[in-house]
Amino acid sequence: MKRERTGNNKFLKRLNQMRILNALREHGAISKIELSKITGLSPTAIGSITSELQEQGYIHETGKGESKGGRRPKLLELKPRSFYSVGVDFDVDYMDLVLVDITGQVIDQISHKVPKWDSVEKVAEKFELMVAQVIDKYSIQRQKLLGLGVSIPGLVDSNRAEIIMAPNLGWKNINFKYLLNQFKDVPLYIENEAMASAIYESWLGSCRGIENFVCINIKSGIGAGIFINGKLYRGVSGTAGEIGHIVVYENGPRCGCGNYGCVETLASAGYIEQRARKMARQGVSIKLSSFKDIDSISIDDVAVAARNGDEASTNILKESGKYLGIAIASIINMLNPKKIVLGKKFTRYADIVLDTVKAVVECKALKFPAADVEIVASEVGDRASTIGAALTPIIERIGGHSCTWNICS
Amino acid sequence: MKRERTGNNKFLKRLNQMRILNALREHGAISKIELSKITGLSPTAIGSITSELQEQGYIHETGKGESKGGRRPKLLELKPRSFYSVGVDFDVDYMDLVLVDITGQVIDQISHKVPKWDSVEKVAEKFELMVAQVIDKYSIQRQKLLGLGVSIPGLVDSNRAEIIMAPNLGWKNINFKYLLNQFKDVPLYIENEAMASAIYESWLGSCRGIENFVCINIKSGIGAGIFINGKLYRGVSGTAGEIGHIVVYENGPRCGCGNYGCVETLASAGYIEQRARKMARQGVSIKLSSFKDIDSISIDDVAVAARNGDEASTNILKESGKYLGIAIASIINMLNPKKIVLGKKFTRYADIVLDTVKAVVECKALKFPAADVEIVASEVGDRASTIGAALTPIIERIGGHSCTWNICS
Repeated sequence: MKRERTGNNKFLKRLNQMRILNALREHGAISKIELSKITGLSPTAIGSITSELQEQGYIHETGKGESKGGRRPKLLELKPRSFYSVGVDFDVDYMDLVLVDITGQVIDQISHKVPKWDSVEKVAEKFELMVAQVIDKYSIQRQKLLGLGVSIPGLVDSNRAEIIMAPNLGWKNINFKYLLNQFKDVPLYIENEAMASAIYESWLGSCRGIENFVCINIKSGIGAGIFINGKLYRGVSGTAGEIGHIVVYENGPRCGCGNYGCVETLASAGYIEQRARKMARQGVSIKLSSFKDIDSISIDDVAVAARNGDEASTNILKESGKYLGIAIASIINMLNPKKIVLGKKFTRYADIVLDTVKAVVECKALKFPAADVEIVASEVGDRASTIGAALTPIIERIGGHSCTWNICS
Repeated sequence: MKRERTGNNKFLKRLNQMRILNALREHGAISKIELSKITGLSPTAIGSITSELQEQGYIHETGKGESKGGRRPKLLELKPRSFYSVGVDFDVDYMDLVLVDITGQVIDQISHKVPKWDSVEKVAEKFELMVAQVIDKYSIQRQKLLGLGVSIPGLVDSNRAEIIMAPNLGWKNINFKYLLNQFKDVPLYIENEAMASAIYESWLGSCRGIENFVCINIKSGIGAGIFINGKLYRGVSGTAGEIGHIVVYENGPRCGCGNYGCVETLASAGYIEQRARKMARQGVSIKLSSFKDIDSISIDDVAVAARNGDEASTNILKESGKYLGIAIASIINMLNPKKIVLGKKFTRYADIVLDTVKAVVECKALKFPAADVEIVASEVGDRASTIGAALTPIIERIGGHSCTWNICS
């Protein structure tokens, strides 16, 4: 009985710590009185818990607040560079890594090309090397590392931190932790890439304070992270947000899923690149045809050509926007969200395509939900999912509205 | 200060009453000890609150539980026929009404044809007459009527109990309460029809205990009620679930929304009837062509003809199943639900079409979410939304997992 009570107390204490840490995350530097009001905890409880958090180094006193007659109250805030987290985004031919501190501030970032044929063991080895380098560079002690967050373009079991299937990487049923050596003992979190982006947008990006939004990642495929009632929505088997296979053109190209005309066969950045290369070969686009290595034409090249007046490139991009708009109209009708954020490679050509997307949505979605939705490009380009992955160990410690782990569910 | 505290106490008391009533709803007849375990309330609190609820007539003692050595504990349950609620489902040419008691048991039901050209004032008048008749028939005192629940095929503001827009009924911006005379003082709840069906499926139907499911209503249009994490999901402007406009055939027929090939132009019961009548006129279907009044051919006639071997009717129905399957595949990919319930007129021909729907979903949806979803026809035919509407005043009193009103949000 005594043991059980101790367990409960520990749990409650952690929960109360999380309430305080999360309030500081949301409100910045605030006084203990404000903390008490926000969290509903008594001033005595606030006093003892904040003392402990200060001792542990999570928070510190900063400046002084406005006086309402008596002494000016001291303000508390999350202590920058006190604790850290590393996030990584794996894809077919690269890994992107960021180091963030407990406030979510990005301290450093590294990109690394990975040969496509590298095994998952090799990738894990390289990943550990990069983590070691970055924490050495900033002399971060191991106990100051809250954890490692991994973003995967595929199906994951985030509760067990396992990769179920990442078709583009050729990974299946992988317990990534088993592959680690020197960081085996650091908490590891695995997140789906689009969901990681949505976590970023909710915590630090353009969806702060927005309860219902959809974050759409556009690269070789198209996927979404969905927030509903302030929480990441995973669905029953963790696959919610697979919007890439909404059929937008019944007789369209065959998709890897077996269907025809899925939106990712007509509007993904990968599809745009393929089509641009084909046009370059056919000589339809003078600008693209002048490339020495047509196979290397990237989405950035297509965007640059379009900006320089290349009609074929503009058409390819705008057509992708049309099909994306059709799929987004369905999403708006179905989910009636407040905001839609278009991320990853879309941000490279958003200036050319976003208006088309919006126009198609205005024409295709129902009036009421369309009037209430805002459609924007992500502000951080490709990095939302990397930072989102880095946030997952911090969320686990701090909790908060976007927390989807057991403790808050 | 004292006043505030009294207010808080009242609120807490109501909340605790709801916890108990809802536990009894979910678990049936149980002892006070079990109630204490389930609700987390102390035995003393359980004792005083259940006494009061017994006095008020909401609950009663029933039979005796199994003894674990000592005296056999008395069991408590919701008292059947103690309190009542009336639900109504309005549509173009009918109103369906049910009387239910606090346990959700349907006591009576009445259907009434309404001339299409009737004004909303006339409809409200007729509705009051029907309510008065049914409560008179069962000698129900006014204070035993928890409220009236109204299901509308359109956009509603359930918080303000207002009808924003019901295109098929020709109603716009209507405060239905203002139109009432003798029941002005009875609590009134307005619910979207598909959402009302979803409430029914969650409380009494085939989705009890299921957190994530989609209830699709098929009649003249197609709409859905979505449950996410155990709660009805309304979206930002209350329009979530407008799946009727998912485009399933880019060059399909023009829809009322302005698009082409929306699923409701190819798979609604209204569309099936239209097509059947056209075929009857063209003599394509011998069975349907033999109808004296071709304009009166209903979905039931088409289903009967199909069951009697009429190929044209079977084809029309199965084709609607194909398009429905395509839309459902998108819903499954996007929301990864545990269950999909197909309701309203679909239940009249589910035996002919459900297999086609499932086969198309298996072919078109992604494997993982498709493997975890169950697709069924509703067990109560057209009546899910009527009963769901009747449940809304009870939910307001009892609370519970599907409650979406302020008190639980």
